[in-house]
Amino acid sequence: MRALRFINGKLEVADVAVPELPHEALVRVVRSGICNTDIEIARGYAGFEGTIGHEFVGIVETADDGPELIGKRVVGEINAGCGRCEKCAAGDPRHCPSRTVLGIVGRDGAHAEYLQLPSRNLLVVPDNVSDEQAVFAEPLAAAYGITEQVEISDQSKVAVIGDGKLGLLCAMSLAQRSPSLILIGKHSSKMAVAGHVQGILLGDISPAMSHYFDVVVEASGSESGFATALDLVRPRGKIVLKSTFHGTPTWAASRVVVDEITIVGSRCGRFAPALELLASGAVDVSGLIQETRRLSQGDAAMHDAAIKGSLKILLDPTR
Amino acid sequence: MRALRFINGKLEVADVAVPELPHEALVRVVRSGICNTDIEIARGYAGFEGTIGHEFVGIVETADDGPELIGKRVVGEINAGCGRCEKCAAGDPRHCPSRTVLGIVGRDGAHAEYLQLPSRNLLVVPDNVSDEQAVFAEPLAAAYGITEQVEISDQSKVAVIGDGKLGLLCAMSLAQRSPSLILIGKHSSKMAVAGHVQGILLGDISPAMSHYFDVVVEASGSESGFATALDLVRPRGKIVLKSTFHGTPTWAASRVVVDEITIVGSRCGRFAPALELLASGAVDVSGLIQETRRLSQGDAAMHDAAIKGSLKILLDPTR
Repeated sequence: MRALRFINGKLEVADVAVPELPHEALVRVVRSGICNTDIEIARGYAGFEGTIGHEFVGIVETADDGPELIGKRVVGEINAGCGRCEKCAAGDPRHCPSRTVLGIVGRDGAHAEYLQLPSRNLLVVPDNVSDEQAVFAEPLAAAYGITEQVEISDQSKVAVIGDGKLGLLCAMSLAQRSPSLILIGKHSSKMAVAGHVQGILLGDISPAMSHYFDVVVEASGSESGFATALDLVRPRGKIVLKSTFHGTPTWAASRVVVDEITIVGSRCGRFAPALELLASGAVDVSGLIQETRRLSQGDAAMHDAAIKGSLKILLDPTR
Repeated sequence: MRALRFINGKLEVADVAVPELPHEALVRVVRSGICNTDIEIARGYAGFEGTIGHEFVGIVETADDGPELIGKRVVGEINAGCGRCEKCAAGDPRHCPSRTVLGIVGRDGAHAEYLQLPSRNLLVVPDNVSDEQAVFAEPLAAAYGITEQVEISDQSKVAVIGDGKLGLLCAMSLAQRSPSLILIGKHSSKMAVAGHVQGILLGDISPAMSHYFDVVVEASGSESGFATALDLVRPRGKIVLKSTFHGTPTWAASRVVVDEITIVGSRCGRFAPALELLASGAVDVSGLIQETRRLSQGDAAMHDAAIKGSLKILLDPTR
């Protein structure tokens, strides 16, 4: 089968064997989505080698460990736990110390004709969610997963910084909890993708917004975004760090201490609520899709996805 | 009256008028304690001018706003709120946006013969707590205030980094909640002050402690201390930032995101629980006192307090 692989510092579409781990489901991939994490892996930042990709929708072909799923259209939680540790026993393999992660840690990923995951990781996609929408289950789960960690109600004053894909998904999904949420970005055109969410250009932040927000989500992945978050959050408020920074950004720790601010690192979320947001139409991701390319053009698609300001590029391994 | 003042970049004991704000209590200071924050103010880091000092015990001389306190021996919460805003109305002036802070923000402080505070800020000291112990009410409240922000039980795995005064107070007070707490420092002799608390030298941290602790309190105020905290905390664990850093330290934000770590800034705490810890003998601060000097020797005492590794130096304005 074809697979988009990063090996020896080189990214290419290669011909490899169909995976055949015992006791896992084999999924025929219908669409996969290129994430910034894929781009970082392909830059050698993550120490991963193998087939990249972790956003997908596909059809279950075989499943020793869950035969009822065969033939079903599924998405999949990307962390595969050991199944035995304390975290796994509590039903949350996302922090299992010996987990593998689809296309990220120790497990071939989704930019391929087939992938494998334990059946317990798979969720059947509702019929009214298209393949293109379903690919967003993973990043939308990551965005909405913030609500697992930080209380957000219709009374909460919430700001999201960053008008990239992740910022837009955070804004659209969290606005379901806090309709007055404000998205802060650099491009009106990109913020328009978030529909009814109120967008404000970075340069238009008013002094009254300083130290105002209960929760500020930093989704720009930039040091200046974090500095803005520190300015916007109120005393005893919370900053959610959603983007992985590279290197070691600097920060004004004294404001964190004096104003007793909490910083919450946030990575993955649960898929079921994300599928509900897609199925109900509460979150419309269609404006986030830039284009769909063949898997065979995967390396060119990765190049385009890395261009600043690009939106979601999907890969189609069926053509 | 005499007061230790920082004016025009210069620290000196000066002769100034006894304060006479209306509607506040006038307190005759019996002992005050030199804190690292005083030293930072005297280095010009904090933008404060006036009488420094915020740790004290004294006798109430007059009190328009609380005559029942006259003649009582008191300590005092250092944040004086406006009394009208949302925070003050909720009984917590510590984050009132227009607060003054004794010897730190807009209000003359405690290294003086007299100070003023609103009567509502004052707490009567139990008879069995000595003057020398009572001076520790403020820093002990700040240390134990961590329990207002982070859940710590006897099941919690807790580490405190830093064997300075603040680290020792954090360790001694939090060990009341989590007896297995570990104090990590650079000097066995200093860690011994914390009594029964288990101390471990920085160089003796075992690999098994990496990613192990539910809560890590960073009380060293150093970048390397924060890096150690990031190494010790478990996925989804909490780092409490107790020391104000200067400048903008760098940090490995990617671990915060990937392992969904929470960083909690922590500054002040409530006095009542701290007085209970002192009155019950649960926390014995006597080993933390280096010496008591006359207020007239305040500038020399400040010099000594700034020497690395020094313990608490008290000032006596009554002699």
